[in-house]
Amino acid sequence: MQHTEILTLIQSEPSLHQVIVKGWVRSFRSNRFIALNDGSTIKNIQCVVDFEKFEEETLKKITVGAAIEVKGLLVESQGQGQAVEIQVEAVEILGEANPEDVKLTILSPKRHSLEKLREQAHLRVRTNTFSAVMRTRSKLAFAIHEYFQKNGFNYMHAPIITGSDAEGAGEMFRVSALDPKNPPLDENGNINYKEDFFGKETNLTVSGQLEAETYAMGLGKVYTFGPTFRAENSNTSRHLAEFWMIEPEVAFNDLDANMDLAEDFIKYIVNYALENCADDLEFLEDRLLQDEKSKPQAERSDMALREKLKFIVDNNFKRVTYTEAIEILKRSKPNQKKKFKYIIDEWGADLQSEHERFLVEKHFKCPVILFDYPAKIKAFYMRLNDDGNTVRAMDVLFPGIGEIVGGSQREERYDVLKQKMETMGIDEKELWWYLELRKFGTAVHSGFGLGFERMVQFVTGMGNIRDVIPYPRTPGNAEF
Amino acid sequence: MQHTEILTLIQSEPSLHQVIVKGWVRSFRSNRFIALNDGSTIKNIQCVVDFEKFEEETLKKITVGAAIEVKGLLVESQGQGQAVEIQVEAVEILGEANPEDVKLTILSPKRHSLEKLREQAHLRVRTNTFSAVMRTRSKLAFAIHEYFQKNGFNYMHAPIITGSDAEGAGEMFRVSALDPKNPPLDENGNINYKEDFFGKETNLTVSGQLEAETYAMGLGKVYTFGPTFRAENSNTSRHLAEFWMIEPEVAFNDLDANMDLAEDFIKYIVNYALENCADDLEFLEDRLLQDEKSKPQAERSDMALREKLKFIVDNNFKRVTYTEAIEILKRSKPNQKKKFKYIIDEWGADLQSEHERFLVEKHFKCPVILFDYPAKIKAFYMRLNDDGNTVRAMDVLFPGIGEIVGGSQREERYDVLKQKMETMGIDEKELWWYLELRKFGTAVHSGFGLGFERMVQFVTGMGNIRDVIPYPRTPGNAEF
Repeated sequence: MQHTEILTLIQSEPSLHQVIVKGWVRSFRSNRFIALNDGSTIKNIQCVVDFEKFEEETLKKITVGAAIEVKGLLVESQGQGQAVEIQVEAVEILGEANPEDVKLTILSPKRHSLEKLREQAHLRVRTNTFSAVMRTRSKLAFAIHEYFQKNGFNYMHAPIITGSDAEGAGEMFRVSALDPKNPPLDENGNINYKEDFFGKETNLTVSGQLEAETYAMGLGKVYTFGPTFRAENSNTSRHLAEFWMIEPEVAFNDLDANMDLAEDFIKYIVNYALENCADDLEFLEDRLLQDEKSKPQAERSDMALREKLKFIVDNNFKRVTYTEAIEILKRSKPNQKKKFKYIIDEWGADLQSEHERFLVEKHFKCPVILFDYPAKIKAFYMRLNDDGNTVRAMDVLFPGIGEIVGGSQREERYDVLKQKMETMGIDEKELWWYLELRKFGTAVHSGFGLGFERMVQFVTGMGNIRDVIPYPRTPGNAEF
Repeated sequence: MQHTEILTLIQSEPSLHQVIVKGWVRSFRSNRFIALNDGSTIKNIQCVVDFEKFEEETLKKITVGAAIEVKGLLVESQGQGQAVEIQVEAVEILGEANPEDVKLTILSPKRHSLEKLREQAHLRVRTNTFSAVMRTRSKLAFAIHEYFQKNGFNYMHAPIITGSDAEGAGEMFRVSALDPKNPPLDENGNINYKEDFFGKETNLTVSGQLEAETYAMGLGKVYTFGPTFRAENSNTSRHLAEFWMIEPEVAFNDLDANMDLAEDFIKYIVNYALENCADDLEFLEDRLLQDEKSKPQAERSDMALREKLKFIVDNNFKRVTYTEAIEILKRSKPNQKKKFKYIIDEWGADLQSEHERFLVEKHFKCPVILFDYPAKIKAFYMRLNDDGNTVRAMDVLFPGIGEIVGGSQREERYDVLKQKMETMGIDEKELWWYLELRKFGTAVHSGFGLGFERMVQFVTGMGNIRDVIPYPRTPGNAEF
């Protein structure tokens, strides 16, 4: 007989039929009630043991963390909190978990700090919090693919190892197969990358956008979903050295269509999580409420987790130009009372997280899309407006997070792009192919990037980005 | 008015309504028939121009590669090969393509070699072959996610940068942020990786399996789908330095269940392609037929492309032990007549591609799953059989390709695994977490790996793996 997953069992009627389950013991109370979990759901199935019918030797091995197989009848539960339970007929110990050893790990049944859980990242997915986060992460990833595929986009794998470092989105990691101690040198005493694996210096990608553009200009609508990297020494709760990014790119879309796409896309995936991760989000919402009880009132969330997600789905994102936003910020109380760390005193200032959050959380009280930013603070590939000062850039700002999406209409005019690359010191020899796209049937096109882990943070309510990816890579940390 | 995608239009009835399309000119015959493509389908829409109604200046710019917008009525086609066409009322040139410049590119309307197309990989997706391959690739990727999500698996992102090099699947690329010319040295004169970004030596992953196992032992069923890397100097039509891999891992699955999963999974995704990429596969099938006409009879495929795919879906994979396979190979004609490059003379020999293909194509004439391989030729983590000589490994062998999937039941017994790691020289200090999984509720579990590009090659019939990924990375090549 095959075993049945707990997710299936807890949704079943009490059939009185025999079932087999396999999973890990979460608790064993009074030598009678086993709470068993197999990862298919946050819920445990209660397995009720009549201890007089079992060997003492077996009962002793039913300990927290042990893997067991239970055979028994699926019956109506006598207790509260579950509709069905298993009346146990046989138990097989698959893998023991010595209680003395378990005590030294995060599997032991007490509250462990998130820091401690990170040190044992190979075991943390066996806790309620991390199993809920990781199931939700998986569902969100699928929602992203489903959204784009339903809408006729092609999934495109942008290269991870890149010979170009021109995009300038951040510091890069070098990739090499040369002997690091005795690298070959050229006649000038520099490292001779011609002898390296790829015959040139290579790095890990910071963005797949430029390559995605080449594919949009043939396939029409594409998206990437892959890992990207930053060699930046940012030890914050919002930064990872290795993270996953989604970058759609659409031929013939202008900035308005780009904003429509971003809003529709975000609402789709957040709604997907609400509909498909109900149990996990309920648990994470409670967790957050408990967590915030120890915080001062001012730092607590205005809305419970699922309420916040519903708010995103149900409300229009407010669209505001950068210029309007600067006016609002200049006149704002925290600016006038010098409560902002960075005071906004003139047009052209780069917005900080504190400003973005003020606009979203205090002023508009809804998600905001800022657009038409000063050209000087944005990347070379963004389309120049007729005013000559602003570019067709957009950032989607979220409560509690600030910028969650950044995008733009791309500069499709050959001469303008060439000029901007020159002015901003981008090497034309390296990006010849990017420039060449504008020579052969160029067209208006737009796209944006969403940092996947920031979206997972938002949906799960986890405060630290290291707790929404299985094995976080940060300065000084590449364990496992 | 919004523009409509060509995929939608060619499936429409001739409505006589006005429509707008945007796309790239594939041809312009007799100053009258524009073949327009927007990437949504391999098919072009025919736009019929009454040249007397248009400016000479406009008509001159409707050249191969140009991006244009066409407004007109959707009418029944007068010609063959399409049900509807557009009776053009207005044309706007969005982006020109100078014919003199186009001549120097692969956009020019003549047959270009695949090598030439690779040199212009930023443009090749505008050709029929590459747009068909890349749409099929996208659909296959989605089929993979859909299969696993429907079946309760969780998508898990294994780390790309890894501090471990113990898996031994192949040579690794080093990742570093140190100054390569003047790296910091320790007291022994070795590079002091403690000063590197992660505080240790790091590499690009060769497989996410070991980390996937940690997640299977908490979430039950997981799969990875991410890039993996090999710094191996393999200049073949089957090897890339950067490629995407799918690695499912399932708690409580033994090797039989693992074989069932692999077979069911492969049939699902191949069938998905047949059902969802009909037009592209038809084109690729014709392409392959044309291509093989120039080959000697013996090198041509026995079946047409779609027939071969249907064969996979409709037939059971034959399951054979390694030991049986060796007996078959020893007795085989090519072995006795010494036609194999590597003669099989005893049990324990590692099978080469020629042997795998003989078994699949000549002997069994169907996909084959070989299992129970000699322990000595397989990885340390595979479960030892009671005979002490073989391990619970399996390889799925495909016609024309050889091994497409490799997997195993994993060694779940702490003592046996520890012993094998010692014997095979795997550093226990590095994989402490992997070993520890066997201390806390260990259980039978299994998984396998599928190289995504090899599956795309199989489904699209493309001979060279460099032609099924947007920007291939191979020795000496990291352009774009």
